[in-house]
Amino acid sequence: MQITRRYKLSALAFSLTLIVGCSATHHKSDLLVIEKQGSFAVGGSVIQMPGTFDPIKQGAYNPAGPDSTGQTLHGDHLTAFYQIPPKANHLPLVFWHGHGESLRTWQTTPDGREGFQNIFLREGYATYLVDQPRRGLSGRSTKSVTINAAPDEQLWFGTFRLGVWPNYYPNVQFSKDPEALNQFYRQMTPNTGPYDAALNIDGVSKLFDKIGDGILVTHSQSGGPGWKTAMNDSHVKAIVAFEPGGDFVFPEGQGPATATMKGRSFPLPKVPMVEFMKLTKIPIVIYYGDNFLDAVLSKSTTTPATLEETSLISCSFLLGH
Amino acid sequence: MQITRRYKLSALAFSLTLIVGCSATHHKSDLLVIEKQGSFAVGGSVIQMPGTFDPIKQGAYNPAGPDSTGQTLHGDHLTAFYQIPPKANHLPLVFWHGHGESLRTWQTTPDGREGFQNIFLREGYATYLVDQPRRGLSGRSTKSVTINAAPDEQLWFGTFRLGVWPNYYPNVQFSKDPEALNQFYRQMTPNTGPYDAALNIDGVSKLFDKIGDGILVTHSQSGGPGWKTAMNDSHVKAIVAFEPGGDFVFPEGQGPATATMKGRSFPLPKVPMVEFMKLTKIPIVIYYGDNFLDAVLSKSTTTPATLEETSLISCSFLLGH
Repeated sequence: MQITRRYKLSALAFSLTLIVGCSATHHKSDLLVIEKQGSFAVGGSVIQMPGTFDPIKQGAYNPAGPDSTGQTLHGDHLTAFYQIPPKANHLPLVFWHGHGESLRTWQTTPDGREGFQNIFLREGYATYLVDQPRRGLSGRSTKSVTINAAPDEQLWFGTFRLGVWPNYYPNVQFSKDPEALNQFYRQMTPNTGPYDAALNIDGVSKLFDKIGDGILVTHSQSGGPGWKTAMNDSHVKAIVAFEPGGDFVFPEGQGPATATMKGRSFPLPKVPMVEFMKLTKIPIVIYYGDNFLDAVLSKSTTTPATLEETSLISCSFLLGH
Repeated sequence: MQITRRYKLSALAFSLTLIVGCSATHHKSDLLVIEKQGSFAVGGSVIQMPGTFDPIKQGAYNPAGPDSTGQTLHGDHLTAFYQIPPKANHLPLVFWHGHGESLRTWQTTPDGREGFQNIFLREGYATYLVDQPRRGLSGRSTKSVTINAAPDEQLWFGTFRLGVWPNYYPNVQFSKDPEALNQFYRQMTPNTGPYDAALNIDGVSKLFDKIGDGILVTHSQSGGPGWKTAMNDSHVKAIVAFEPGGDFVFPEGQGPATATMKGRSFPLPKVPMVEFMKLTKIPIVIYYGDNFLDAVLSKSTTTPATLEETSLISCSFLLGH
């Protein structure tokens, strides 16, 4: 079992390396060929207000807000934009963005290069780019929210490990062109309702129910919900996790009871062993980037948590495998 | 002058009819071929808070919200997703959504057919789908907002003239499959900051500055700002307006002083004649759909305003041409 598992992991890692390696040799002028592309919503729920809607009395647009009597609101769904090449590889890739991000994450990079959307399409993969419920194109929420225009980008500069503001890490691959940082910040987009991991897991599960078997690609905040989606839905046949954070998965009775990050202690949620074991049956590859040590030495508190997260997730996986 | 103008209008209307006519003969299996696709942000502004950001003290993620001292926020930009076919037609199409909508408007239709994004791509047009500032993928706003999850969809059912809730117009082409209405509602997405037409005009103008000459396609709420964008930016070489509303353009000293809609009177903004005349130099085609009369007879107050809007805009164009 352990051998099979390692073989699977290595095979996937190798195949991914190959993919990225190959794509680097492509010329920019190569044509993208697409058999089908489009977008749709899955999941979500409907609020139904009591009473009967009167199209005459309530039909006028009112800038102060609608009279909701008898009206509905469809919200909390997930939106996907898909592109399917001819003779697509067996499994499509589902790309799930992280905190404060949207499907823009996987399109053009901040410095204008092609993103994973194009790279994997060229390699014959169907791609599904997701905006999770209450984010980006999936903006309608069944719960109200106030979005504060509070400047926070120097925090994200550190969190995404570009450097310790105002300095980039010397070896960081992120472009030093100021326009790249401008584009990077403008890729961010806020929650349009309260963040709800269960809702997001439900949305991505419903997407897999619709499209069938596929590979889930997570980033940062979607890492945790990603594990749970795979336990939820047997259509998730593999996971590629970029810097997964939060919501670490431990089987009941194993692993630490609490985690401490940045001085804050919190209980670690446990899942039944039978659920946890599902993660041991699919190939999983995890990527963490550079500059962890630099972040620690800088004493910036933005990043060291990632180290703790990494050891937590390592711990979680050691238990599983 | 008047003859030239009419010729131009007819030529564009004919060419669009031809395009839509042709695309209807395409088989679903035809491949989309794309030379370049990607996304980027244009326009917007930056808030800079006073003080110096301390990456150690302020670097920790704080669920209660960031300490904004010395931090920035890039907001109010426009996001565009573009697809350029090989040997693209001379002028790209820029698609600008209406109220409560996003770039989803132009993708898959609510009943699952291909949208304008695919149809015009197949016909050799480069397409730019826009999320205006503070909408969809352009979610970061320099001003705070509260989004109320207030049910309002029966209002939109009427406003978009599907029928008078709960009945569809008998001849409406919108699919009666309940899933189509579900998808339609889930295409909507709220403003993530206060609505600001000037900001939106600036964003679309900056897009044209970047991409050069093109054809602007507006829908409903973007109709008004669309006229102003064309006056702003000589790269707008033609306008296709679907049910344009609001912000009607009249030259100074001409047209009515005020408009009355649904019993509400408001002054009509005027523009200098030299600006207004710019609109007479480019081809413009305007589409309004069916069921105006049904809406009036039903005494639903949702729709008759559109009639008034139509006469206003007709009046505006008669003055110009």
